[in-house]
Amino acid sequence: MNKPRHTLHDHQSHLGWDNSRKPVLTVAPGDSVEFHPRDASGGQLTRTSTVADIARLDFAKVNPVNGPVFIDGAAPDDAVKVTLLSFAPSGWGWTANIPGFGLLADQFPDPALHLWTYAPDLAAPALFGPGGRVPLKPFCGTIGLAPAEPGLHSIVPPRRVGGNMDIRDLGTGTVLYLPVEVAGGLFSVGDTHAAQGDGEVCGTAIESPITLAAKFELVKGANLPFPRFTTPGPVSRHLDTKGYEVTTGIGPDLMAGARAAVSGMIDLLSRRYKMRAVDAYMLCSVCANLRISEIVDRPNWVVSLYFPRSVFE
Amino acid sequence: MNKPRHTLHDHQSHLGWDNSRKPVLTVAPGDSVEFHPRDASGGQLTRTSTVADIARLDFAKVNPVNGPVFIDGAAPDDAVKVTLLSFAPSGWGWTANIPGFGLLADQFPDPALHLWTYAPDLAAPALFGPGGRVPLKPFCGTIGLAPAEPGLHSIVPPRRVGGNMDIRDLGTGTVLYLPVEVAGGLFSVGDTHAAQGDGEVCGTAIESPITLAAKFELVKGANLPFPRFTTPGPVSRHLDTKGYEVTTGIGPDLMAGARAAVSGMIDLLSRRYKMRAVDAYMLCSVCANLRISEIVDRPNWVVSLYFPRSVFE
Repeated sequence: MNKPRHTLHDHQSHLGWDNSRKPVLTVAPGDSVEFHPRDASGGQLTRTSTVADIARLDFAKVNPVNGPVFIDGAAPDDAVKVTLLSFAPSGWGWTANIPGFGLLADQFPDPALHLWTYAPDLAAPALFGPGGRVPLKPFCGTIGLAPAEPGLHSIVPPRRVGGNMDIRDLGTGTVLYLPVEVAGGLFSVGDTHAAQGDGEVCGTAIESPITLAAKFELVKGANLPFPRFTTPGPVSRHLDTKGYEVTTGIGPDLMAGARAAVSGMIDLLSRRYKMRAVDAYMLCSVCANLRISEIVDRPNWVVSLYFPRSVFE
Repeated sequence: MNKPRHTLHDHQSHLGWDNSRKPVLTVAPGDSVEFHPRDASGGQLTRTSTVADIARLDFAKVNPVNGPVFIDGAAPDDAVKVTLLSFAPSGWGWTANIPGFGLLADQFPDPALHLWTYAPDLAAPALFGPGGRVPLKPFCGTIGLAPAEPGLHSIVPPRRVGGNMDIRDLGTGTVLYLPVEVAGGLFSVGDTHAAQGDGEVCGTAIESPITLAAKFELVKGANLPFPRFTTPGPVSRHLDTKGYEVTTGIGPDLMAGARAAVSGMIDLLSRRYKMRAVDAYMLCSVCANLRISEIVDRPNWVVSLYFPRSVFE
């Protein structure tokens, strides 16, 4: 890999999406850039934070993203092709239950915080309480372009142009195609995670400052309805060695099914491993995967949560 | 593995769930049984069927299941623990788009049928048109107990007691726990599949007659809210070698997101491999996996469809 031709530092960041924001960098197709985003708390949480800091979080400062990057020649209906070249993790991170946020926010009203220290070379899983070993796979939670709609838009929801998609496989080697809605695309990235399961059920992953490098290309007239991506290889082999414990939720509503599957796993883990329920919830968020097992046997669908047995066995 | 002590043949079957139905077999905990279910069409489709037979399908005869099996000592609030011991595939199967059925039924109103011939020892992937190679992993689509609610209930929707769950990982070595609602549990199984992706998006899998063996045990007072299971090892290594093509659907409704992700993949496959859209749809149903990438970044969720690149590369 060639050395990136550009670097964006953590201060070259913004909060929320706004297509009138001035680019901090312009690149030509083929260029690559190294990004140094802050963690999702925007530096509010540190290696010495306590649960009291969760209650004090200023939501106006969360999820800063590095950018915007203007990609020369990008026009509406094109796709920006982003090749994720490398991730250099910092070795620390946090997972929190933030009141009001998360799939089971109604059941977990109190703040909780877990601080992680892990080997930056990812040689070993990260430890969680007595016995939990969480395999790591760094990726960027937020990666996207500016939406066409004028004004300032919250960074929290992902959109057609990407953004806070929290797709756990947007890691090294993945090629992501993002639909362009404005001239130059106006790319930004941040919210890096050391690990996460499909769903990010408690609302946070292993939130961790991670430097990353990406290469930009254009696909003219791609006319994508939504983002798509290609992974360079298997996506679960870092955690699937011993198979899975799986809980299900069955019924006419996918959201209710997902909630039931997660509740079932929290009950199983907290009983079997004598964990607090909120710890089991956070643990599921960083390593368990929500799948839609069937979506056709009307009127009841099956949503399943796959928890990797390698974490405890 | 010990030889199963009991055998149920294809005529020892029933249509729909009804807890007043007389058991065809009573077993003690620890016993195992060999099952010979018919395929999901109940024998209406054969190796020589054509698409015209799809229009003539009698829905009153679909999804016959072997059973019921009365498990001695099973009582409400217990769980029946089913260990899936072995699957012996027949070597042929079918996948259909059945009008009115499937995630995109509105977009695919016409019947379609694909007949499969495959190596019963699963030594090679099953072929689909020019170039498609679908890895196989047999399992039972329908496996469950009789519901407490009196009367006859359609076999199509799965319920708290299991049934037509179509979970692709209910294959060899998996241990499934089913909540008991009536004395004896009244277990039945059928709807065997040679392969399926998470979601079963077109409504059918590789529907294939497959003999299976299962062992029954009891967990007294398990008090499960929904079925759960444990897999003996990785669940995707038969198809993940080359990674995935992934399409997404982003928005406030998981069902709409799933539909968008599947539509995006059908467009990609049909354009790239010059397939009919309905063939791409059926192909996704047998090997692509629907995952919920994030379900917390209110108000927009991300549903992703993972198509294994090994099918074409």
